[in-house]
Amino acid sequence: MKIYGRNAVEEALKAGTTIDRLVVQKDMKDAGANRIIKEAKDRGIKIFFREKTALDRECEGKSRHQGFIAEVTDFRYCELSDILAYAEEKGEPPFVVLLDGVEDPHNLGSVLRVAECAGVHGVVIPRHRAVSVNDTVVKVSSGAAAHIRVAKVTNINDAIAELKQAGVWVYAADMEGGSLYDADLRGAVAFVIGGEGRGVKRLTRELCDGVVSIPMFGSVNSLNASVAAGIVVYEKVRQDKAVS
Amino acid sequence: MKIYGRNAVEEALKAGTTIDRLVVQKDMKDAGANRIIKEAKDRGIKIFFREKTALDRECEGKSRHQGFIAEVTDFRYCELSDILAYAEEKGEPPFVVLLDGVEDPHNLGSVLRVAECAGVHGVVIPRHRAVSVNDTVVKVSSGAAAHIRVAKVTNINDAIAELKQAGVWVYAADMEGGSLYDADLRGAVAFVIGGEGRGVKRLTRELCDGVVSIPMFGSVNSLNASVAAGIVVYEKVRQDKAVS
Repeated sequence: MKIYGRNAVEEALKAGTTIDRLVVQKDMKDAGANRIIKEAKDRGIKIFFREKTALDRECEGKSRHQGFIAEVTDFRYCELSDILAYAEEKGEPPFVVLLDGVEDPHNLGSVLRVAECAGVHGVVIPRHRAVSVNDTVVKVSSGAAAHIRVAKVTNINDAIAELKQAGVWVYAADMEGGSLYDADLRGAVAFVIGGEGRGVKRLTRELCDGVVSIPMFGSVNSLNASVAAGIVVYEKVRQDKAVS
Repeated sequence: MKIYGRNAVEEALKAGTTIDRLVVQKDMKDAGANRIIKEAKDRGIKIFFREKTALDRECEGKSRHQGFIAEVTDFRYCELSDILAYAEEKGEPPFVVLLDGVEDPHNLGSVLRVAECAGVHGVVIPRHRAVSVNDTVVKVSSGAAAHIRVAKVTNINDAIAELKQAGVWVYAADMEGGSLYDADLRGAVAFVIGGEGRGVKRLTRELCDGVVSIPMFGSVNSLNASVAAGIVVYEKVRQDKAVS
């Protein structure tokens, strides 16, 4: 879907809408334009500067572009409270995955896919310094993005506090914890998975109720986020099944 | 690394060397040239037809190109017997992953990475209709490709027979089997993982000692090959650990 016009684009940015691509008319250099461009840059949005004629062509027969056209993903995020309500509706203890700064759309798509398969009630992603559910993510998720609830939050740490408040046991999946296989993962559980190469941030890890580590036997000893997510969520699936 | 010359390229093809890119001089149309081009096409190798001057430039100061330049990955494959010997050397029951037609280099790279982390002794891939260890695979594996043994075989089914002969219990990871969590995965075990979207081929599955399925609770209910591999190999890691 495309959004035309300076105000529409600025509103979309304010609302945290996922913008895949922003086209800006080359000679737009006033303060308002610079504010939009800066905000888009901070969010890691790809910006293309084009001649006015190119923008005219892109919105032929549409409303005026005023120098700004944004391509947005038509993905509807939910709130963390919606994820908890969904678990309650299903009569199941909440089962949530939080991503701490996953930047690669392939990883996010793949996490959504395995979360959906494992019966996770929802995935929480941060609004900043992380990839949103864009077209690549939707494609990689093999359709899972249409089924899994995704909440986009300003602060992952606040989401952890909200989960703990709701009686959910929050585990960080990280290197320096006890073995995943020694942890009791039954009942209401959330896992925090770190981004590529950096793992879960220290402050975030300290907020969690516990840290679980996937045992490593090789030389490389780091897994990509979606594989790590798959291993931890399915260990919970196994433990839940073992008692049912 | 680059290979120059008609014979060198043909030998590399015969030896099953991983060719990332084949450059062919535009006017090469004799029977010998066509044979090489057809063989390369059958193997899914990217072929570029270029003017003679372009090839001359690529091999400046090198030996004559005779119309053929191949870019190969400098990856050393081993034999399945080497993988079994390595397990014996470590004093461990063999732990092997076989891939049945994985075509996406990201998936193969990611499988090598999780296999290396989990202490798998080696990965077996088919020579045909599957991706080889090319530069993308090496990159995605995050260095794991330098540590994990990879055997490239003409026939996966023969490899399964060889493993069974060696006392290894071979499981296909596929949709229509018993739950992964009900299977006894301790000791000498190999897993056959299917390619994208197709799963393990029927004939191959029938050769296996058993089929294990990852329980699915969603609407999509298919996992990418590397995530599926991660879940099954780590379930074996858990079971081995539980008894040790």
